[in-house]
Amino acid sequence: MTGPRYTPLVASLPATVPFVGPETQERTRGRPFRARLGANESLFGPSPLALAAMTRAAREVWKYGDAQNHDLRAALAADLGVTPENIMVGEGIDGLLGYLVRMVVAPGDPVVTSAGAYPTFNYHVTGFGGVLHKVPYAGDHEDGQALLDKAAEVGAKLVYLANPDNPMGSWHGAEKIRAMIEAVPEGTLMILDEAYIEFAPEGTAPPIDADDPRVIRFRTFSKAHGLAGARVGYAIGAPPLIAAFDKVRNHFGMCRISQAGALASLQDKAWLAEVCAQVADARARIARIASDNALSALPSATNFVAVDCHADGEFARRVLRELAELDVFVRMPGVATLDRCIRVSAGPEDQLDVLEEELPKALAAARG
Amino acid sequence: MTGPRYTPLVASLPATVPFVGPETQERTRGRPFRARLGANESLFGPSPLALAAMTRAAREVWKYGDAQNHDLRAALAADLGVTPENIMVGEGIDGLLGYLVRMVVAPGDPVVTSAGAYPTFNYHVTGFGGVLHKVPYAGDHEDGQALLDKAAEVGAKLVYLANPDNPMGSWHGAEKIRAMIEAVPEGTLMILDEAYIEFAPEGTAPPIDADDPRVIRFRTFSKAHGLAGARVGYAIGAPPLIAAFDKVRNHFGMCRISQAGALASLQDKAWLAEVCAQVADARARIARIASDNALSALPSATNFVAVDCHADGEFARRVLRELAELDVFVRMPGVATLDRCIRVSAGPEDQLDVLEEELPKALAAARG
Repeated sequence: MTGPRYTPLVASLPATVPFVGPETQERTRGRPFRARLGANESLFGPSPLALAAMTRAAREVWKYGDAQNHDLRAALAADLGVTPENIMVGEGIDGLLGYLVRMVVAPGDPVVTSAGAYPTFNYHVTGFGGVLHKVPYAGDHEDGQALLDKAAEVGAKLVYLANPDNPMGSWHGAEKIRAMIEAVPEGTLMILDEAYIEFAPEGTAPPIDADDPRVIRFRTFSKAHGLAGARVGYAIGAPPLIAAFDKVRNHFGMCRISQAGALASLQDKAWLAEVCAQVADARARIARIASDNALSALPSATNFVAVDCHADGEFARRVLRELAELDVFVRMPGVATLDRCIRVSAGPEDQLDVLEEELPKALAAARG
Repeated sequence: MTGPRYTPLVASLPATVPFVGPETQERTRGRPFRARLGANESLFGPSPLALAAMTRAAREVWKYGDAQNHDLRAALAADLGVTPENIMVGEGIDGLLGYLVRMVVAPGDPVVTSAGAYPTFNYHVTGFGGVLHKVPYAGDHEDGQALLDKAAEVGAKLVYLANPDNPMGSWHGAEKIRAMIEAVPEGTLMILDEAYIEFAPEGTAPPIDADDPRVIRFRTFSKAHGLAGARVGYAIGAPPLIAAFDKVRNHFGMCRISQAGALASLQDKAWLAEVCAQVADARARIARIASDNALSALPSATNFVAVDCHADGEFARRVLRELAELDVFVRMPGVATLDRCIRVSAGPEDQLDVLEEELPKALAAARG
């Protein structure tokens, strides 16, 4: 009596997870966090319109969701000035990245990303047997030219860039991104992850060229829209690429309540503007807290701030551990030299009060 | 400027979808259905406890869901007399089937199922390059012995059986299923899909042997619990197999609102019993409507009834089309001789009133 015969690829995969969630940490610790500032969630919550729509939709949750995500795709297309055939909706950007990697990456295929960029993308690439080639950041920015050079060198099927960037919060202007798309090597698809785009200054997102087969853009309701737990992301791309998702996706995989929430949230532009204003205030306060403690906040176009602890990764990891001891959940970049920073999500005053109170203690403990 | 280079497997896949959803049909038709009796949803709705829990959870939807599904797995384990390490929660059985197939099936690997059984399983097997071997039903039942014989003959990695069965509503007793598990060929994993188990007579589900590596069982909140749109399914299996899902799944893929709804629904045993009683009444009424029209209802252990139209598949397809013209959404089996039937979901009186009113007209039109 033996177990199943896994594929050689799956048998070879490690049992690691891309992230340990805050609930998992709370169970390990045996007590809850007082400040939840580690997952770049929107502590300002969802739009009241989205809440009302989700409450209404719950009464019809006995129905499967619309497999075509028709209404949400139509609304997104109208907003973006493209057609619904340019839009694929899925179970968060994470889910869509998994589908895309499956569509393009066979075992041994080369893929390019930055060392220290989004771990869940790497998880999917490894999970389908792809070979990751990582280029370093240029300072605290992803290095567009190095990414393209490496993609050309290895014949990459995918090259990944987040703009604005996670975990550093840095960003490139639209012109630079536009030039990158123009220079993508033949046969390489560029993934432009714009999860944080709503927080970025005007002129960060290049215009959408809806039929450009060289790039696929990802956006989400998890960040500015405050719907992380609803799991709604979307891709914007050329129609043949968008249609190809239908070959592999879980067609009835979307939660009906989430579809309704995202659709309603899209109508509430005032809420979105208000959240972005609150995030800007929170970033400024995190920067003040940092400088009050002789640390430096990096400029951010996102809903989080990378705070430079002015020492090495070992020190920042100690700060992180001490903050957790003091019931403050934050995360940090995974590679040097980015890992001199801790990454703090924007939050309302009461959450940042906890940070302000506990950070000096954590720093003292980390130094002692 | 070309598009992405798809994997040879994905390039070869057809762009078909396993099911056309009722919303898609309504958009094509240009008007809504009056009776939604085709997707085996629970028209009796979710538990009021689940509704209240989902409304509460919506206010915290800015948080990602718990990636470990800890509370739901603990509650399911307690209910089933197993440990949480025996339970994997995922985005419906469809989502979990996709992960399992990916874990086990490499291109060219043999998989066994019944001709006419669940199309979404076949979609996943084809999607990962598996080779499907189909055995016929024995009458209106899946043929356990033929499935095992074929699995041994081709060296199948997976063999799929639904008990009770979809689309026929038939079932085998626990002893027969238990004997099948004992006879599963070495190196084959049996998938026991128990999506409809709550509707079946006592003695349909064999006892759960939580460490048996030869079988993985799937259950869902989409049917009796009335939460199809929430997308919550679960697998019960040996801990090493359950742990292997962590290598490939979308760890943060579960909707937080759905997690809360499923957990609350699990506590509402009275609601579940009430739904099952209403489903039994609805099955009896569908049988009466069938016999009033000189058709025969097959015995059912599910929340739907296969109605034998006493002619060939071409006739049943005409009945289906005519019912759709009359705004009644039902589905039917896809292969002969099962396709002499149409498949009608249980529903409350007002929905079955529509069926009772329209079925004679549809039959007359199909005969004319």
